[in-house]
Amino acid sequence: MLGTILYGAGDVRCEDVPEPKIIHPTDAIIRLSASCICGSDLWPYRGLNEVTSPRAMGHEYCGIVEEVGTAVTSVRPGQFVVGSFCISDNTCPHCRFGFQSSCEQGEFMVGAQAPYARVPLADGTLIATADVPQEDLIPSLLATSDVLGTGWYAADAARVRPGSTVVVVGDGAVGLMGVLAAKQMRAERIIAMSRHKTRQDLALAFGATDIVSERGDAGVARVKELTKGVGADSVLECVGTQEAMTQVLGCVRPGGSIGFVGVPHEVALDGETLFWSQASLQGGPAPVRRFLQHLMDLVLRREIEPGKVFDLTLPLADVAEGYRAMDERRAIKTLLEVA
Amino acid sequence: MLGTILYGAGDVRCEDVPEPKIIHPTDAIIRLSASCICGSDLWPYRGLNEVTSPRAMGHEYCGIVEEVGTAVTSVRPGQFVVGSFCISDNTCPHCRFGFQSSCEQGEFMVGAQAPYARVPLADGTLIATADVPQEDLIPSLLATSDVLGTGWYAADAARVRPGSTVVVVGDGAVGLMGVLAAKQMRAERIIAMSRHKTRQDLALAFGATDIVSERGDAGVARVKELTKGVGADSVLECVGTQEAMTQVLGCVRPGGSIGFVGVPHEVALDGETLFWSQASLQGGPAPVRRFLQHLMDLVLRREIEPGKVFDLTLPLADVAEGYRAMDERRAIKTLLEVA
Repeated sequence: MLGTILYGAGDVRCEDVPEPKIIHPTDAIIRLSASCICGSDLWPYRGLNEVTSPRAMGHEYCGIVEEVGTAVTSVRPGQFVVGSFCISDNTCPHCRFGFQSSCEQGEFMVGAQAPYARVPLADGTLIATADVPQEDLIPSLLATSDVLGTGWYAADAARVRPGSTVVVVGDGAVGLMGVLAAKQMRAERIIAMSRHKTRQDLALAFGATDIVSERGDAGVARVKELTKGVGADSVLECVGTQEAMTQVLGCVRPGGSIGFVGVPHEVALDGETLFWSQASLQGGPAPVRRFLQHLMDLVLRREIEPGKVFDLTLPLADVAEGYRAMDERRAIKTLLEVA
Repeated sequence: MLGTILYGAGDVRCEDVPEPKIIHPTDAIIRLSASCICGSDLWPYRGLNEVTSPRAMGHEYCGIVEEVGTAVTSVRPGQFVVGSFCISDNTCPHCRFGFQSSCEQGEFMVGAQAPYARVPLADGTLIATADVPQEDLIPSLLATSDVLGTGWYAADAARVRPGSTVVVVGDGAVGLMGVLAAKQMRAERIIAMSRHKTRQDLALAFGATDIVSERGDAGVARVKELTKGVGADSVLECVGTQEAMTQVLGCVRPGGSIGFVGVPHEVALDGETLFWSQASLQGGPAPVRRFLQHLMDLVLRREIEPGKVFDLTLPLADVAEGYRAMDERRAIKTLLEVA
């Protein structure tokens, strides 16, 4: 079959790879209904994470169960499933606390930019729908696997509550999903920081009430102005840079909460700054599994349409163009047709 | 009257100072029932915070209202009051969110190691008791002003819940109050990290269930062993050093919570470490005012006795010896007789 392999910075290829097989009795093989490229795929693509050997790319997935290992009991061939990008047994202490992304047996999904993928720990990772969903729901269901779940976790970690004032730093796909999540959590005011018209428009479509196009100190000043000098109750950091974290700390009110889901690249937090801010800070790889059923239900009931975040659709064979388009910010997020 | 002035590192003196006067109509003058020395007073005493000019020391206080400014309405002369070390109007947005230590009009109390002190913003800062309390309750009521309130905030920020497993890093007075707070919040297991017999004993008296005397990696390993490899739900950082923060991050379970109240001195947090820990982190100067009524009630009902943390009592004239004893860790916390 075709699969996506990253060889090094800027060098991603669609090429023949072996079809996945059951390795452990807890595995499932799924035939993907669609796949996509994640913002986090761009870190190694841009050479910011080292690539020491060719790497099978893709960790967002949904599709039809093709085969299951002998130990799998909760899903069966023919069912439509979505799974988290974080593989989890969903039974260890960390999973039971709702932090499945720190599962004792955890690993990251790989190789999902392909027509078939092996999902380890299928019972703890996958959730099946009652019926095979309608075709037009696929992009939104795919989004629950990571990008929506990650934006949702950012809002959860930032303790968004009904009536909250929320700032979202980062207008990538995760930031936009953070806007959607904050809206679902009934935030009263959602300030999206973005300088790009198409992303601003999408943020507004997902529920943003205000757009701030300034950055850095000017952006912080604008947020302070919009919040009457108080600052925001909740701030979502969806970038992963020092610049973004500094902006976040400037926007949060004393005692407010920060959820950070951008994988930090050379980000340092000064203890004293954090101390005097009194802000609560929580981040990490999103425990999507904790939210997955709820997010799938929202999509299946057509209450949310996170799939709108895909603004480019390409056949798998053109995956390299998908990476380029996202790298150059010509696309927010690329959906891959893998069938 | 006598008062306590810090002139520089190691140079604290009890000397004649002017009696405080009402300056603003929102001020109150109180006659202190007792005062004390705070662990945070040791930072400048040790030269770790610069002392550029002589500084009137003391920010923990309780006593009888002597005089109030014309705008004060909630307390009157003759009443016994306790106030937070953080002066607050208790009406600004930050106060209403429960972060009175970030009050828009906030300042820190000064000059309370003396028989009389001026308390600004008396209405927002002080709480009066119904009657003048019995003499033996004074040390415990004094403790609510800062040291207990700070330990309580550490436990609150670390989201201690009934049934939680808690680790307290730091066996100073604040750490010991953190143990007491965790006990009141019905933590099931409270692991106090301490190498000193008298402090271990006091921790046990306040509700610790386990003592870990190892430090650093060995201390973390011991905590992991005690928690079956999981780590603690809540960790209280009551020191303010990099070493303590590193220990805290090692002890917390993925997704657990850290409350840090030790004023950070050259503490840096690595974004990536924090990210992968998934820990929630909140700290700062304690908004004691949020908890003060509850803490005073617990003392007045004799349900807690935080005053046990004072293991040295000296007349105000001997304040320098009080600082020395705490600096050399001969005393946990010094009570000053100011009458």
